[in-house]
Amino acid sequence: MTSALSHVACSRCGARYDADEIVQLCACGAPLLARYDLEKAARTLTRDALGGREPALWRYGELLPLRDHAGRVSLEERMTPVVPLRRLGPELGFDALFVKDEGLLPTGSFKARGAAIGVSRAKELGVRAFAMPTNGNAGVAWAAYAARAGIEARIVMPKDAPAIHRWECETVGARLSLVDGFIGDAGRIVADEVAKEGIYDASTLKEPYRIEGKKTMGFELVEQFGWSVPDVILYPTGGGVGLIGIDKALRELQEIGLIAERMPRFVAVQAEGCAPIVEAWKEHRTVSTPWEKTHTVAFGIAVPKAIGDFLVLDALYRTDGMAVAVSDAELLEMQRSIASREGLFVCAEGAATLVAAGRLRESGWIERGERVLAINTGSALKAAAAPTGDR
Amino acid sequence: MTSALSHVACSRCGARYDADEIVQLCACGAPLLARYDLEKAARTLTRDALGGREPALWRYGELLPLRDHAGRVSLEERMTPVVPLRRLGPELGFDALFVKDEGLLPTGSFKARGAAIGVSRAKELGVRAFAMPTNGNAGVAWAAYAARAGIEARIVMPKDAPAIHRWECETVGARLSLVDGFIGDAGRIVADEVAKEGIYDASTLKEPYRIEGKKTMGFELVEQFGWSVPDVILYPTGGGVGLIGIDKALRELQEIGLIAERMPRFVAVQAEGCAPIVEAWKEHRTVSTPWEKTHTVAFGIAVPKAIGDFLVLDALYRTDGMAVAVSDAELLEMQRSIASREGLFVCAEGAATLVAAGRLRESGWIERGERVLAINTGSALKAAAAPTGDR
Repeated sequence: MTSALSHVACSRCGARYDADEIVQLCACGAPLLARYDLEKAARTLTRDALGGREPALWRYGELLPLRDHAGRVSLEERMTPVVPLRRLGPELGFDALFVKDEGLLPTGSFKARGAAIGVSRAKELGVRAFAMPTNGNAGVAWAAYAARAGIEARIVMPKDAPAIHRWECETVGARLSLVDGFIGDAGRIVADEVAKEGIYDASTLKEPYRIEGKKTMGFELVEQFGWSVPDVILYPTGGGVGLIGIDKALRELQEIGLIAERMPRFVAVQAEGCAPIVEAWKEHRTVSTPWEKTHTVAFGIAVPKAIGDFLVLDALYRTDGMAVAVSDAELLEMQRSIASREGLFVCAEGAATLVAAGRLRESGWIERGERVLAINTGSALKAAAAPTGDR
Repeated sequence: MTSALSHVACSRCGARYDADEIVQLCACGAPLLARYDLEKAARTLTRDALGGREPALWRYGELLPLRDHAGRVSLEERMTPVVPLRRLGPELGFDALFVKDEGLLPTGSFKARGAAIGVSRAKELGVRAFAMPTNGNAGVAWAAYAARAGIEARIVMPKDAPAIHRWECETVGARLSLVDGFIGDAGRIVADEVAKEGIYDASTLKEPYRIEGKKTMGFELVEQFGWSVPDVILYPTGGGVGLIGIDKALRELQEIGLIAERMPRFVAVQAEGCAPIVEAWKEHRTVSTPWEKTHTVAFGIAVPKAIGDFLVLDALYRTDGMAVAVSDAELLEMQRSIASREGLFVCAEGAATLVAAGRLRESGWIERGERVLAINTGSALKAAAAPTGDR
């Protein structure tokens, strides 16, 4: 299981960089993506080989950037389950509605995937300290994996982010700064610090490996759907790296011939209080306009301007997908509905995808018999604080 | 994978009952335990067979009570990882210290195991409603699985239990009552309700199947330690069902010849503010005396008198184990230590086991080279509310 990583390449201009040097953005300002020798990967990454590997994201080693798995930084994260919604599904008009429950990962969210691979690779490349802005869960995940790796983590977070995330970052020993503003403001502080001190910038898509962790959602779901893809995947979209990652994963598996050349229709789900991707999609634009006056309980997707917006929009157009905004009232109601019907505690962001699923089913955009997968990006135990306020 | 369940038998007097009838306590007042035709189980439950089964507690079907797995009530719970403590372990003087992280199960605690099997079996036996007392996590887990099963859950909880548990129970639609007192007081209310309305009593050890779920911790850890047992297992002990369950699992595996006849030394870990098992063990008694003036932040193990105390104590004596009480200050400090060294968020109860491990290593009761497993019973995301109070 040797990484087939060959180089990193710009997602916009195509410029190539040495993958075994520390790189951040392309000189043109766009994100760099990891590229693999897919022929080489195809020789050992087979269905048979996978059958004998551990049920964890590390099983896809050929298509991960880590050169030496002995040095991996892991909290023993396992593959997350795909849970059939046998009661809520039919109520919403679906025969086959599923949730992939990412809340069961260490640190309670899908951000553990990006941190596991991102921190492991940073450590391998010799990084001793990094800085990053976050709305909470990403910072917590990176701080936790950094603690395990013995790397210094500097986290900058909006002061209005849920208090649990402050507690988590501090508990694992990260250097935490709070900023009176949104994640973009936190990002500017990180950029200053990075420029001044020359430390690693672990901001979303400003290093190429976080997305490599997140794409493992795509690998896993393909296996879980019997080496095929669902008809529709709904993704709660802030920075959108998870969606870009799943898209990248499916295309890599197609290229090495493990699945047929058929894509799911991607649905980017946002909150009405912060829906720049939805607005851009409606107007068929290729990039989004920064959102003003962000306000939503789904803090994890409160990203006014995503650096990878053009990649998200490209995936929506390319797969005949779409973008949907839902209200806080709807998603909070859905949190209760899914809990009382299915016993599942999904976060606000995850609940948003189910609201969107219901609406698209009602409009006929999704048909009853289609296989539909909603991604629940985190545990509701964290979200619990937000809606009730009584903790 | 057919259940080899043969009957249920009293843990004290040995009386036998039909396993396919609804049973609660033995006529003598002691808990009933599920018994299997182990010869029959041994024919199909082999290491080879397990290699091809899903990485979930359901893989041990021969030694689980469910007759028809098609009817199982599952949140797609996966095997929980055993995490090596490569930084904290050596600091505490260990070469091989591990945590089994039960916080990654649905509903955020090991209670999901008992609920998955307990609710599945209750549904199979035709139960339509149950009542149970809880300090929080067990009630949440049973309420969630009941929601998924379409069974009515009546949960009675001390009003001082963490607020998150109230939110969780209400969100999944359970009928929740709060009581001004401890779990024993909640138990008396449940007993009244059960007597009055003839519903199923899902209290700890008052039905025989919750422990069958919890024992899967024992099956899993045996596989994870390469078909052997660690030298020492430390367990945060309230009702003690997890410890009794692991003990039962290991003995069943020995009887069917899957592991050698060697037991780990069990260590029951309690809080200084509620340590009836520790007191009984010190005086070499076979049962505990009800604890008065319970006070600890480790609410999950605040059980003044466990119905299965005699089974816990028997396991300690039989395995040359011991019982240890730790202070709240120590366990809160340990929560931070393990987070900052390992990136792991363990609950207060889980942290207590690591305090005990450190102390037993220091005293020489555990040797440096021994393989030591601490059970973290739940996610720290829930515990987070308690120590800081700032949520």
